Amino acid sequence: MENVTAAVSLALLLFGAPAAVPSVLDIEKEKAALIRTDIEFSDAAQKLGVGEAFLLYADEGATMLPSGGDAVTGKEEVRKQFADFPKGATLAWKPFRADVARSGDLGYTLGTYESRAPGPDGKTVTRYGKYCSVWKKKDGSWKWVVDVGTPSPGPR
Amino acid sequence: MENVTAAVSLALLLFGAPAAVPSVLDIEKEKAALIRTDIEFSDAAQKLGVGEAFLLYADEGATMLPSGGDAVTGKEEVRKQFADFPKGATLAWKPFRADVARSGDLGYTLGTYESRAPGPDGKTVTRYGKYCSVWKKKDGSWKWVVDVGTPSPGPR
Repeated sequence: MENVTAAVSLALLLFGAPAAVPSVLDIEKEKAALIRTDIEFSDAAQKLGVGEAFLLYADEGATMLPSGGDAVTGKEEVRKQFADFPKGATLAWKPFRADVARSGDLGYTLGTYESRAPGPDGKTVTRYGKYCSVWKKKDGSWKWVVDVGTPSPGPR
Repeated sequence: MENVTAAVSLALLLFGAPAAVPSVLDIEKEKAALIRTDIEFSDAAQKLGVGEAFLLYADEGATMLPSGGDAVTGKEEVRKQFADFPKGATLAWKPFRADVARSGDLGYTLGTYESRAPGPDGKTVTRYGKYCSVWKKKDGSWKWVVDVGTPSPGPR
């Protein structure tokens, strides 16, 4: 029995305890969970406002790559990015792909977005784009660490 | 001895063989290797041309998110993106951050880029930006799976 215990200990030492890296992870399940998180993130943007949702889902060291500006990092900088978000404007998105590392701690989503804002004449202007979000899982929840989007022509 | 073998087999079964997920990975070393790969990628763009380098480092299912266009996926689509790359134009970049999953199979780099192209008067026009590349390790080499960049104001 002592030999058995020693052998198991040795195997754990050599090949790692499950706490270090879960070795049998259902990646398809993880991808589906990340897709769901990204959809909930967009739902939160409708309910709480875009800025609040971005903060709620942001990692402490989250980086945005805004068009025409420099890269910004950290929640305080994320907050500033949305300070001038126009009143009455909305941003909604939908992921079309997710992938997750075998260790389940890093992943990304790709998706398309639509933003609506009142134009100078009061009519709503819709803009289209696509995005990449990189996500990190901490304490069991996915938080975005990178957010970047670019304009698209939109439906034709 | 039979018990020992059985116990090791059981431990391998429960906690995974190292081939499935390397459980002890030096993440800092992995990050440094990914940074090096991204730098070599930029070097290749100077030597081979931007389009050739992008193809050389692309995963089969690589997706670009070009500004003003729709997302494109696959090497053939990547090739088309660079078909109109102006003669005499260059694109060079430098990563400022990398992160890698604990399993070492997924990572990302963030960096800044400079593109130079002859303007209508023949003088070189320099444009600045920043990018996010998502990378996947396959057969021991990092390939990019997502590439997206946005313009920056550049040095002031």
